[in-house]
Amino acid sequence: MTKTLAIGKQTETDLSALKDAFDPVEVTVPADISSLDDATRAAITAVAYKGSHAFGAEQMDLLPNLALLANYGVGFDTIDISAANARNIKVTNTPDVLNDDVADLAVAMAIMQRREMVQASDWVRSGKWAEKGAYRLNTKFSGGTVGIVGLGRIGRDIADRLAAFKMEIHYFSRSEKVTPGWTYHTDPVALAGAVDTLVVALVGGPETVNFVSAQVIDALGPKGVIINISRGTTIDEAAMLDALEQGRIAGAGLDVFLSEPEIDPRFYKLDNVVLQPHQASGTHATRAAMAKLQRDNIAAFHADEPLLTPVN
Amino acid sequence: MTKTLAIGKQTETDLSALKDAFDPVEVTVPADISSLDDATRAAITAVAYKGSHAFGAEQMDLLPNLALLANYGVGFDTIDISAANARNIKVTNTPDVLNDDVADLAVAMAIMQRREMVQASDWVRSGKWAEKGAYRLNTKFSGGTVGIVGLGRIGRDIADRLAAFKMEIHYFSRSEKVTPGWTYHTDPVALAGAVDTLVVALVGGPETVNFVSAQVIDALGPKGVIINISRGTTIDEAAMLDALEQGRIAGAGLDVFLSEPEIDPRFYKLDNVVLQPHQASGTHATRAAMAKLQRDNIAAFHADEPLLTPVN
Repeated sequence: MTKTLAIGKQTETDLSALKDAFDPVEVTVPADISSLDDATRAAITAVAYKGSHAFGAEQMDLLPNLALLANYGVGFDTIDISAANARNIKVTNTPDVLNDDVADLAVAMAIMQRREMVQASDWVRSGKWAEKGAYRLNTKFSGGTVGIVGLGRIGRDIADRLAAFKMEIHYFSRSEKVTPGWTYHTDPVALAGAVDTLVVALVGGPETVNFVSAQVIDALGPKGVIINISRGTTIDEAAMLDALEQGRIAGAGLDVFLSEPEIDPRFYKLDNVVLQPHQASGTHATRAAMAKLQRDNIAAFHADEPLLTPVN
Repeated sequence: MTKTLAIGKQTETDLSALKDAFDPVEVTVPADISSLDDATRAAITAVAYKGSHAFGAEQMDLLPNLALLANYGVGFDTIDISAANARNIKVTNTPDVLNDDVADLAVAMAIMQRREMVQASDWVRSGKWAEKGAYRLNTKFSGGTVGIVGLGRIGRDIADRLAAFKMEIHYFSRSEKVTPGWTYHTDPVALAGAVDTLVVALVGGPETVNFVSAQVIDALGPKGVIINISRGTTIDEAAMLDALEQGRIAGAGLDVFLSEPEIDPRFYKLDNVVLQPHQASGTHATRAAMAKLQRDNIAAFHADEPLLTPVN
């Protein structure tokens, strides 16, 4: 019997690679596991998971011999780590290979928001430039102050880029890091109060829910812009929408949302927000690298070798 | 009689500052100079010029005592420098104060093109994300190779930013510069052949017309993207449009065009091009700094002190 279960919609290339390597059983979502017969489920020791549905105790208990849950993506907030630990299931993710793409999108959203580049693009394409003249002046980006909320690997990659834009870098992190003189804050409210642009690069999951609270948003103030490439859960989204609508912050650049892809319709009415469809890691090269790292973790497991990127 | 003539549409703040400093005669475009009476024209020794109309021998000869032509903007391709030299007219521009803004826009256009961020924004705002699912994968930006055509002050500011995106930097310039190991090319065709992204940061004017020729564009190839924040004249625009339409290059990010603001309608049909309305220096802070530098040059001239930023 095959030992690997692949869950999720794969690209043709990735599916072909998974088949070549593991000849897996395939289902589309975790809820489909229950449709597999007992013998098939009992044979599964490793899952290749790709998706945004919860994978918890219920799914794990349907796979009595599961020992590896290899997630596609750096964020693993869909997976119940406590339930995995209780069943001696190791979880892996796909860190680092997507950092560059995520940092690129964060920086571009930040510039696009200040320089109103989506609106300026519309100004050209609608013919208004020719009809009505120059697009309105907007706000300088370089030389500002930025606060990184969460100076992990992605936060660091964002900060390194922003330093080249002559920005003064501040950050919050659980512990102080070795940096080129960046300013460490232990309090996210104090961080927000010290900067004009706040970039959220936290891990998701229950511990960071609403970490960027109404109080943090208020501290950022009317010249402030929030950039979020982490998870929709890390920001008090209703409080952010209130602040955006009322001009208590200047704007936002968001790749992630609480109820994506059915995002809060209040976002559609805001022209001070750059909206992206959770595409930060969405390049051919990076998605291929993520799929390869997922496969490499599964191959290591089946070969009884150390996992490459365990998270528990 | 007043010695200063202000030409162009000023912001209220700038106009007020010009009045306080010089009590100038005001006209809107160079063609209006002829409507001033002889005595007024003869009194003028300095012009504060802002605009995109040509300022040449004909205009200069209407101002027999003109000795300073202070341009608002770093590019002075509207001004006939030979004609100015022949009449002992000094020309000044407003360099450096706009470099950061121009570099910011160049970098953002480059990322937006590769990551299809205008289209991805439309995908969210049109509701397609919720209806049809994820936006399509696109192309990684960081880690690529970039060629800077013209490593002057703006080109350097762009390259410094792109280095933070882990890009391999190549450049063309009239002479080799001191760099952190960047690759110097004496031939723009060879430069284009070595890179995936070509950023045009040349000065405008007759010497650089069609510098990015059909041959350079062909050498860039089907994975290549052209970014232009210099002048529309520096690229063979018809050849670039052909290449964009035929997929012989991957795309472009353009803030400047040959016949702006009435740009070639072929651009509107291209979805692989990021279009901006010549707004690179268009921030409140930078435009105020440009106007101040223009006034400072005029004040220095009237006080018989050295000009701050002469170009001839």
